[in-house]
Amino acid sequence: MARGPVDLNGAGLGDMDPEAFRKYGYQLIDWIAEYLAHPERYPVLAHVQPGEIRAKLPEAPPEGPEPMEAILHDLDRVIVPGITHWNHPAFFGYFGISGSGPGILGELLCAAFNVNAMLWKTSPSATELEEVVLDWLRQMLGLPLSFTGVINDTASISSLCAIAAAREVVPGLKARQEGLPGRPDVPRLRLYTSEQAHSSIEKGAIVLGVGQEGVRKIRTDVAFRMDPEALEAAIAQDLKAGWRPFCVVATVGTTSTTSIDPVPEIADLCHRYNLWLHVDAAYGGAAAVLPEMRHVLDGCERADSLVMNPHKWLFTPIDLSAFYCRHPEVLKRAFSLVPDYLRTAEGEAVTNYMDYGVQLGHRFRALKLWMIFRYFGWDGIAARIREHLRMAQTFMAWVDADPDSERLAPVPFSVVCFRARPRDLADRLTSAGTQEAQEVERYLNLLNEALLEAVNQTGEAFLSSTRLHGRVTLRLAIGNIRTTKAHVARAWELLRSHGARLDRERRPPTLR
Amino acid sequence: MARGPVDLNGAGLGDMDPEAFRKYGYQLIDWIAEYLAHPERYPVLAHVQPGEIRAKLPEAPPEGPEPMEAILHDLDRVIVPGITHWNHPAFFGYFGISGSGPGILGELLCAAFNVNAMLWKTSPSATELEEVVLDWLRQMLGLPLSFTGVINDTASISSLCAIAAAREVVPGLKARQEGLPGRPDVPRLRLYTSEQAHSSIEKGAIVLGVGQEGVRKIRTDVAFRMDPEALEAAIAQDLKAGWRPFCVVATVGTTSTTSIDPVPEIADLCHRYNLWLHVDAAYGGAAAVLPEMRHVLDGCERADSLVMNPHKWLFTPIDLSAFYCRHPEVLKRAFSLVPDYLRTAEGEAVTNYMDYGVQLGHRFRALKLWMIFRYFGWDGIAARIREHLRMAQTFMAWVDADPDSERLAPVPFSVVCFRARPRDLADRLTSAGTQEAQEVERYLNLLNEALLEAVNQTGEAFLSSTRLHGRVTLRLAIGNIRTTKAHVARAWELLRSHGARLDRERRPPTLR
Repeated sequence: MARGPVDLNGAGLGDMDPEAFRKYGYQLIDWIAEYLAHPERYPVLAHVQPGEIRAKLPEAPPEGPEPMEAILHDLDRVIVPGITHWNHPAFFGYFGISGSGPGILGELLCAAFNVNAMLWKTSPSATELEEVVLDWLRQMLGLPLSFTGVINDTASISSLCAIAAAREVVPGLKARQEGLPGRPDVPRLRLYTSEQAHSSIEKGAIVLGVGQEGVRKIRTDVAFRMDPEALEAAIAQDLKAGWRPFCVVATVGTTSTTSIDPVPEIADLCHRYNLWLHVDAAYGGAAAVLPEMRHVLDGCERADSLVMNPHKWLFTPIDLSAFYCRHPEVLKRAFSLVPDYLRTAEGEAVTNYMDYGVQLGHRFRALKLWMIFRYFGWDGIAARIREHLRMAQTFMAWVDADPDSERLAPVPFSVVCFRARPRDLADRLTSAGTQEAQEVERYLNLLNEALLEAVNQTGEAFLSSTRLHGRVTLRLAIGNIRTTKAHVARAWELLRSHGARLDRERRPPTLR
Repeated sequence: MARGPVDLNGAGLGDMDPEAFRKYGYQLIDWIAEYLAHPERYPVLAHVQPGEIRAKLPEAPPEGPEPMEAILHDLDRVIVPGITHWNHPAFFGYFGISGSGPGILGELLCAAFNVNAMLWKTSPSATELEEVVLDWLRQMLGLPLSFTGVINDTASISSLCAIAAAREVVPGLKARQEGLPGRPDVPRLRLYTSEQAHSSIEKGAIVLGVGQEGVRKIRTDVAFRMDPEALEAAIAQDLKAGWRPFCVVATVGTTSTTSIDPVPEIADLCHRYNLWLHVDAAYGGAAAVLPEMRHVLDGCERADSLVMNPHKWLFTPIDLSAFYCRHPEVLKRAFSLVPDYLRTAEGEAVTNYMDYGVQLGHRFRALKLWMIFRYFGWDGIAARIREHLRMAQTFMAWVDADPDSERLAPVPFSVVCFRARPRDLADRLTSAGTQEAQEVERYLNLLNEALLEAVNQTGEAFLSSTRLHGRVTLRLAIGNIRTTKAHVARAWELLRSHGARLDRERRPPTLR
């Protein structure tokens, strides 16, 4: 550590001088305004090699203070070239999550107040605003009054909390007190979710001590929806084999294809077998703010818990996951621990959010939702999501009309799953003998991997991929607040031209 | 939902117009600059009743867009009165966490980029900057090169990850695959931590299926440090009784008194009994950036994992928890799940942070540390923490010199534990018979609860409390970047005057 004279960059031993904060704050606001006005100036996917950014950064920590100008200079010089620009209007990967101006300003305020809303007392506004905006969101989603909310960081944590609550109410098991196994006479736990469910469900089960073997993945139908008959058969089989079924996680908007599990039928089964029903609507739930899309949450009013992530499709900067539960007292039973240093006089009269989840620290995230909901209004948010759905339908129509492309899943929301499949190979897939069909499939996988890479390397658009029935599947996910039809059209143009070129270059002679 | 004409507040269906973002961004920067320059204009503890903030907010979500002016007006009118001002220089509660100008600007940038750094590819800069700043912090703390870092949101999650890793390496147990119980021949797990450890350790054990019974709290010595002899005796006893000891969590800076467990001796025991050693240095670790305080982490170089929270005492807006582990491959074994939709070509050549923790979503928090470390420099940060330690010593000296006060714990960092104890009652506590001593203790508890309430109600200072050996204990925690000796002196004045007044008013006749 340096022992030289200490230059304290501003106000003696305190914080940055207020005038310096104002000056650099303005500079950053300008920088961000310019950046968000033109994110397409940058390639969507960062064009850097592993280690390239690290190599530009000093190995040792800075000993003395540096001018903010130097830091902002390095922002442009070092950091920005290694950013994958989720703000780019042609970011079509994963889910096209995007923040928004009011959301960014909400996060700025959250950082400025810097309260830890673990207790009501440690910032009543944070707790009560969270209660209010989550109730607004509940109304916007058409969920019943019995759903009580808490804001978590991610759906990974929200779903973990749901499964923990499910574990807590298993009859005869005292998971909180005794752990797993609570008692030798309580069989091993089994959770059910579809083979298309998000990896966070399996991870939650691992974390909670249920283990991968405690997760049974139910097969899906042609539209990638959980098959309720297969679910019931699995439950019955497990009961016979001595397992203890305890939880079903249904998904509204799976990650690969955005399929919607048949929640009403699943809710029936959960009722019949006394299982906790958790719904992962992290992505798809957002669409329910549109009256014409509210049906996607049909049956969810009977769920025990539900997660919906405003940081996916409600223009909220990551992180903000809305977790609803109809049995908050169970969450409290599962999680509440009140040490002496956190006791307050208010007791049961208030909500202390630390009682309802894993983390003690609780940010004032509600500010983000508050500013977004008010700035855009329910109507404005709905209009944007409606436009995303419309653009996805347009892109879907292009895929369907193109003889050299093949759509690989229905499009209930704003994600289109498809692949390049040159027209002359279509016949060979259906009519040819097994061996030739397999050769074609292998080639199509290579072709589509190359196509994804080629399009992403242009820097003009970014898509991600998945596999459906072993097929490499391209995903075009629309959700970015800046995306317009022109960006979708350009992506389609790139896909078509690179697809044709790569097919010419890469097709093996045997398939010509 | 409203069906009226949609006024879209700015740029059609896109985000807030860039010029509007600039305008309101400036306004908020101005607002924050003014707020942070004078947080003492507000009472530290919010003077509101439960439900008071909620009652000022609409029950239904806003249908159409509202002007940003209206939102900012409500910020002053509704939100601010219900804020407990952690930024107030006389916030002495819990730990005096505080953000800082460069940290707030870092959070602003994080929200603007809004990347999800789950994979290297999804923002190489985010991953590589995180690797670099965590290595800077490692050097500043004097930890060996073998410590690999990952940024989590909170210490709750970091410690949960540590315990999950410990669970993963229990011989014969396959927790990830089989859950708990993995096998009937593997005994129940037991974790050891002191009776002064943070509640997050017990909560982590609950979440992970170890259960409360799987946590054995080891008694502490007169200075509230874990007693290694008691630890060894507990391990030996548990082994005999058929438990499987698997993890010890030592604390550097416990929450009630900031005591430091004897990590070197505990590390010896962990080595002998093959137990995972996790160190919770969430608060205390920060002091190790001072050369003269580096000894607080003695022995931690032998830990398997360690958590240190820059959002506590390194002027970083919440949330940012630095989690170090000497066996990142174990974390990966415990947590990595790579579904088809997240596979990338880079494979093992890069760090994909999603592999090392519970949450898939991963914010670009590294920006905050980068801006703070560079703006203040190691020296500047050290100078501020040194001043906090010095102020705590000053306050401690005042308590020790005051015949009407009693210090209840040593002061290794910047938290002083004490109580009002009128001088004439001191003799009765030591010389009197048991019954009278108990009556005095009961009275002192009431007196100190009333004193805490009275001081906090002034709005001029805020302290929190704990219980030590059944005694209501006031905690003065210094850590706010704006705190000066004048604020500490004023708090002392308030404590003395209200203490004397309350003793006059409340003392029962039997104790006069």
